[in-house]
Amino acid sequence: MERPEDIKHFSEAELIQLAAEIRAFLVDTVSKTGGHFGANLGVVELTIALHKVLNSPRDRIIWDVGHQAYVHKILTGRKSAFPTLRKFKGMAGFPKRSESPHDMFGVGHASTSLSAGLGMAVARDLSGEDYHVACVIGDGALTGGMAMEALNHAGHLGTKLLVILNDNEMSIAENVGALSKYLTRLRTDPTYSRTKAEIEQMLRRVPAIGPRLTKTLERVKDSVRHLVVPGQLFEGFGFKYLGPVDGHDLPVLINVLEDAKLLRGPVLIHLVTQKGKGYASAENAPDKFHAWPSAPKAKAAPSYTSVFSETLIQIASEDPRVVAVTAAMPGGTGLDKFAKVHPSRCFDVGIAEQHATTFCGGLAASGKRPVFAVYSTFLQRAYDQVIHDICIQNLPVVFAVDRAGIVGPDGETHQGVFDIAYLRTVPNMTVMMPKDENELRHMLWTALHLEGPSAVRYPRADGLGVDCSEPLCELPVGQAEVLQDGDDLAILALGPMVQVATEAAQELETEHGISAAVVNMRFVKPIDEALILSLSDRQLPMVTIEEASLAGGFGSAVLEVLADHGRSAEVLRKGIPDHFVEHGSRSELLAQLGLTKEALVADALRIVADRKRKRYSATR
Amino acid sequence: MERPEDIKHFSEAELIQLAAEIRAFLVDTVSKTGGHFGANLGVVELTIALHKVLNSPRDRIIWDVGHQAYVHKILTGRKSAFPTLRKFKGMAGFPKRSESPHDMFGVGHASTSLSAGLGMAVARDLSGEDYHVACVIGDGALTGGMAMEALNHAGHLGTKLLVILNDNEMSIAENVGALSKYLTRLRTDPTYSRTKAEIEQMLRRVPAIGPRLTKTLERVKDSVRHLVVPGQLFEGFGFKYLGPVDGHDLPVLINVLEDAKLLRGPVLIHLVTQKGKGYASAENAPDKFHAWPSAPKAKAAPSYTSVFSETLIQIASEDPRVVAVTAAMPGGTGLDKFAKVHPSRCFDVGIAEQHATTFCGGLAASGKRPVFAVYSTFLQRAYDQVIHDICIQNLPVVFAVDRAGIVGPDGETHQGVFDIAYLRTVPNMTVMMPKDENELRHMLWTALHLEGPSAVRYPRADGLGVDCSEPLCELPVGQAEVLQDGDDLAILALGPMVQVATEAAQELETEHGISAAVVNMRFVKPIDEALILSLSDRQLPMVTIEEASLAGGFGSAVLEVLADHGRSAEVLRKGIPDHFVEHGSRSELLAQLGLTKEALVADALRIVADRKRKRYSATR
Repeated sequence: MERPEDIKHFSEAELIQLAAEIRAFLVDTVSKTGGHFGANLGVVELTIALHKVLNSPRDRIIWDVGHQAYVHKILTGRKSAFPTLRKFKGMAGFPKRSESPHDMFGVGHASTSLSAGLGMAVARDLSGEDYHVACVIGDGALTGGMAMEALNHAGHLGTKLLVILNDNEMSIAENVGALSKYLTRLRTDPTYSRTKAEIEQMLRRVPAIGPRLTKTLERVKDSVRHLVVPGQLFEGFGFKYLGPVDGHDLPVLINVLEDAKLLRGPVLIHLVTQKGKGYASAENAPDKFHAWPSAPKAKAAPSYTSVFSETLIQIASEDPRVVAVTAAMPGGTGLDKFAKVHPSRCFDVGIAEQHATTFCGGLAASGKRPVFAVYSTFLQRAYDQVIHDICIQNLPVVFAVDRAGIVGPDGETHQGVFDIAYLRTVPNMTVMMPKDENELRHMLWTALHLEGPSAVRYPRADGLGVDCSEPLCELPVGQAEVLQDGDDLAILALGPMVQVATEAAQELETEHGISAAVVNMRFVKPIDEALILSLSDRQLPMVTIEEASLAGGFGSAVLEVLADHGRSAEVLRKGIPDHFVEHGSRSELLAQLGLTKEALVADALRIVADRKRKRYSATR
Repeated sequence: MERPEDIKHFSEAELIQLAAEIRAFLVDTVSKTGGHFGANLGVVELTIALHKVLNSPRDRIIWDVGHQAYVHKILTGRKSAFPTLRKFKGMAGFPKRSESPHDMFGVGHASTSLSAGLGMAVARDLSGEDYHVACVIGDGALTGGMAMEALNHAGHLGTKLLVILNDNEMSIAENVGALSKYLTRLRTDPTYSRTKAEIEQMLRRVPAIGPRLTKTLERVKDSVRHLVVPGQLFEGFGFKYLGPVDGHDLPVLINVLEDAKLLRGPVLIHLVTQKGKGYASAENAPDKFHAWPSAPKAKAAPSYTSVFSETLIQIASEDPRVVAVTAAMPGGTGLDKFAKVHPSRCFDVGIAEQHATTFCGGLAASGKRPVFAVYSTFLQRAYDQVIHDICIQNLPVVFAVDRAGIVGPDGETHQGVFDIAYLRTVPNMTVMMPKDENELRHMLWTALHLEGPSAVRYPRADGLGVDCSEPLCELPVGQAEVLQDGDDLAILALGPMVQVATEAAQELETEHGISAAVVNMRFVKPIDEALILSLSDRQLPMVTIEEASLAGGFGSAVLEVLADHGRSAEVLRKGIPDHFVEHGSRSELLAQLGLTKEALVADALRIVADRKRKRYSATR
């Protein structure tokens, strides 16, 4: 299967056989490599049907979120790359323009496909071309505001666009929202089912697929318009609605897509699929099989996420003002456990980070202490709301920024490297990062006692295995912790880099006789100016080290303090340089970025040697 | 009228009289002070009805966008402050929590009210309280994705929330989108009108307003459910729909609100109002009277906005790939003129910055050269899309970032001060700002010839009146322009601050004999490293000056270059400090921030004097 054209001549039976083979291949490989699993088993037939009916890459197939594009990758010549899936320098887990001309639009976040697809459809119209644009979006991603914005615009323009709603009755978590209830109603309405049966009967009576059938179908739909409600919401947006259709019935899928191709204007095809289809364990526990873990291993220490979750449960048990909010990530953020203990105070708002943030603003303005647990990369979606609704009003909302720093196999769309730069520029915001999981507990407690907004960022990693039993206490805001003093240089570290710095300092001391101060900075904002100035007084060269973008990051904040106080100091900033960081394991990527003990030791040795050389030349 | 309670005992006739007086007051004062006008004339009756039926601040009234809250300000004791409306240190043009306990949630951007209101409603439920929460949102703001996210969540939760859709048949520009068409259908459907008449007849037959009537109303609605479509879209989201209601009929408004108070769950009341109601000129040309200009004056030079507009029209005439996109701001961005010349290549997507950005991504991925003209503060809404859809894929989308810097009377929600910090941290992005309107032309041309994403930021200001007739040319990317050399210090300036720097240097030279180099930086990213290093080689103290946030801004980029090359240099960074900048005129605010010739001269004198003193001590 090197090109999608290879399946064009396949018979119905051969396509069904192909689906079975792909399913077996996925079960076999993904269980070894790790990766998203259930979603891909759910779209085997859909992907085959799309490549049978459309001509990729002339016709554009756009995957929303993109974690369900494995079958698409298999059908477009990348089957042999599967052993490297999501591995360092291997095949990406998401569509990627640089990987294949069949990957029309790169993705990783939800709800973007309709906007991108509509852009392509408009470009097509302007250029007088006639290719098809098909967007595949899940029921979860459809709750994202930008998908609604795109529906509204597409309905307004009325240009031809195929939207395939892949309704698997749950996205990552249990689906949230009125829209979800609406889809359930479409799926279960007995009036509707009867009508669907009637339509299918009619389909059987009409021999040829073509404009005539399409017209028939439309006539049927029109005639039942006032008897049943299917798709009235989508029709409110100006879409023609087809469905629900069994997403695992290949012949029906092919027929519906062929039909949809002939309709004018925007069309929404509502498929019902089953996550994990064809793999019994995944079918029965779809949330467990959303993604197959990359490398299951014995855990030495609890993850930062789980310590966050347990601490928040504990604090909320004592403080009734505390409420927790997630945007469709209860499992990933650990709020699923919170919801079990405090069900009335946990809100999953769906894939809707903008709303989540301002919803927290409303809660805070009415005396609650909301905590929005959100991945760093997804908080980007709510940047304006952080500024406009939270920080301008100085409302006490806590952003628990999970997956801050390098996240690993999900790659550039998921790296949490911008949050320091984009949050510390906003007035009233406090930004902190703990050196270990115990400090995370105190930071969360501290954040919940502030009178204004704050962000506590922590990595996608296990903790250090430190004792987490001490009573929660408030950390002095804006004050760093000097872990050890030193005379040759000072390492100013943030988050997990504190441990790297400590180990580097130890090696510098024992192996090279170099004395390095190690500072756990704790607060990016307000930053510990007094400490930075005292280091500058001692003319110590400084190294800043952070798992975040160097442009505008924590290291830049240190430079700003020095410049604003008229100090000059030698500062080496270590962090994420000005390029997007691809997928790979955390350790591989941190090594590539020089965010390791070894690289830090080498940098320190160079700095100390340079300084000696300079002093030597100065005294000669 | 000091407290909203004052109108509680008013008779119907007195309330109608009050409406007339308020309207006269608005016409009288706003025509003098400037400010939003049409929107406020449109909600006179609604605001009176809200304060009659609800008990603010116990009940919470939340205004979306907030430019229509003047009547609310009058009724809550702020009538006497109107002469200072939108003036420096005067009353804000938007609701503001710090201004009044009746301003429940500060605002300035669109589509936030439902999220904030839902947060308050949930806080109420958790605390076992029973106040009402009413959100007033326009038909334009409803197209914003976050409003849809909130509708979806509110429908899911099913808690009590009043949403008042103020449908004035146009927001700022002609309304965009399928939703708008849908609302028009609701307003004009003859089936519906007949039914409304029937309901009204029934209303008249039932003497008392109360649960009984409500039930009757609901019964009527249920019985007509399958005959007419009103509100089915909103009902799809789980809302009870009441309307359309004449938004200028005070007694009807009061009745509907009293009724809605008694309903359980989320309710949407659809009002039809007329922008500029009661002021003939505004009624006839509502877009002209959206806001009353603060200080009409003779124009010496065209605004940056109009030069952008004309240049883009010219370029698009020659390059068919160029398309223009706005998010409901055709007039403000100057794209209204573009739309007249190139109607098929201009897209107003509604209040939907997220969709606009990724729509541009789709256009660019299909060979077009999209230009998204957007205010700096509104681009914050699309931050994730800038990263995820445009920059990761290195797509050639041009962001024409208007209103960058201090915007004036709209205040902290509208200041465009964060874009440098949040854009320059994103890989692949080019960020530039012109010294005058002619350079804007060349920058736009340059941006459209780049193979990746770029942002050209320019202020809400008139140009300098320079010649704009020279042929368009590509500026060397990443290269600054040295306007004059100097021996005592170097001023590195960006955008309008270049002119300030030039004037300051002249005064320093002629009045104080100080020789200052002046550099027009042009590019924030890539920044001119060679130039900065050469200045550092000459040990010149540097002053950076920008109309942007100091944290992570252009000045920080200069510090980063110096630190990364192991250089130390004295750098004074001038820009926006770490607080939100309130409303006032541009000149007042720039003076307060020290971004003037006078302040720059004073800084330069101090730097030069300090340096002399240091040299003197060193040589003694």
